[in-house]
Amino acid sequence: MITLYDLPTLSGDPSSSPFAVRIRFALRIKNLPFTTRFVEYNEIAAAAKEIGAPPTGVRQDGSPKYTVPMIYDSETKTAVADSLLIAKYLDRTYPDSGPTLVPDDTEILQNFFASDTSFTFLTPLYPLLRVGVFRKISPSMQKQYVNIGPPFDPHEKFDEKEMAEKWAQVEATLRKMDGVMGSRDTLGKAKEPTFADTALGANLLLIRYVVGADSPEWKALMLWHNGRWGKYLDWLENYGINPVKMS
Amino acid sequence: MITLYDLPTLSGDPSSSPFAVRIRFALRIKNLPFTTRFVEYNEIAAAAKEIGAPPTGVRQDGSPKYTVPMIYDSETKTAVADSLLIAKYLDRTYPDSGPTLVPDDTEILQNFFASDTSFTFLTPLYPLLRVGVFRKISPSMQKQYVNIGPPFDPHEKFDEKEMAEKWAQVEATLRKMDGVMGSRDTLGKAKEPTFADTALGANLLLIRYVVGADSPEWKALMLWHNGRWGKYLDWLENYGINPVKMS
Repeated sequence: MITLYDLPTLSGDPSSSPFAVRIRFALRIKNLPFTTRFVEYNEIAAAAKEIGAPPTGVRQDGSPKYTVPMIYDSETKTAVADSLLIAKYLDRTYPDSGPTLVPDDTEILQNFFASDTSFTFLTPLYPLLRVGVFRKISPSMQKQYVNIGPPFDPHEKFDEKEMAEKWAQVEATLRKMDGVMGSRDTLGKAKEPTFADTALGANLLLIRYVVGADSPEWKALMLWHNGRWGKYLDWLENYGINPVKMS
Repeated sequence: MITLYDLPTLSGDPSSSPFAVRIRFALRIKNLPFTTRFVEYNEIAAAAKEIGAPPTGVRQDGSPKYTVPMIYDSETKTAVADSLLIAKYLDRTYPDSGPTLVPDDTEILQNFFASDTSFTFLTPLYPLLRVGVFRKISPSMQKQYVNIGPPFDPHEKFDEKEMAEKWAQVEATLRKMDGVMGSRDTLGKAKEPTFADTALGANLLLIRYVVGADSPEWKALMLWHNGRWGKYLDWLENYGINPVKMS
């Protein structure tokens, strides 16, 4: 059985990390059962050392940086951290369990897409997303979250007119993505989702997580581009022989 | 024989269009001989109609927009415009002539890379690039060039300290790209260049075109990241059985 290490929420949402959501999608696409273990920021390093997951980077002070998602696979007694490396591990270890998430000739392009292009439509929303995530995590996580990434004001009120312009920018960027994807379901082969799809799907879900599925903003987004993004998320969440609900 | 339609320069450089440079690379990678026909901006539409190349977009006033690169292949009596569509045409028409530039499962990711990620490191240099291209084209092209894209001052002088900061940003972005590419030569399979490589190579050459191969800026860039980018361009320019000089 695979254990996914993820960041908890106070809101009933399954995750507050879009990087861990990639692996929720990936495990479902691969038809692999899993359990989740939630760890707050200050518990990640200890959990990583416990299972033997390596750091994924280095902090400014030179100390090792541990991050979620991490997985521990009790079948192979293997720990893996970093969403791309986890996807590659699942391909290698369970080659017949579902589509190949990272075909060899696409690895570098997928890595660029996942770390760059898949975020472009979120850029105008960054302050809103920061505040939105802040409000959905525990007080102990909040204390650390304010120190992650660029500074932000957790009590910021957003000007309605300004936000309408930001949403128009999001729409314009997603319209371009819609154009590039054309009639295909996926960023990869005609009918099989890839690691890049899990990144795009997770970043779309980050918006839903912050504004809520019932908000006018999310409902509007679901109507853009002939309903493409709703259909895209449905397809991703229900892909495979044993589709499982995201939560 | 294939004719490539390209934008002329006054400087002896082979092209002033990074999009046409992609196809210069692509034709060499495919080992296909070609001749170049240079057309100024105001000659592109007539040339396109002459060979039957379709528009690649629509202007704000609703009229069709014609762009270079375009190719005319006299063997097949076919005209193609748009760099990605030309690469796909070459794959389809000359499948055994060199590596596949756009393998099926990579088309969307390559399109994103070519239209988005491959430009990211150029962003801090945009005003410099605009002025640099302006200085290398004919007075008649200059008159139209000032109206293409965002406004710029063709007589702008660049502050030395400010430019040093911009180049540091370019270095930081290329350092990340170097990290993603790792020890691989290419953005695709281990040893074969792809369409995405032609885009990245063309954007690197745009810097060389503007600042000059003998400039301290270009010489510095050639030393970054263990000389990766110089080696990368050499590899791209000399790929194939019949490497041909870019000019």
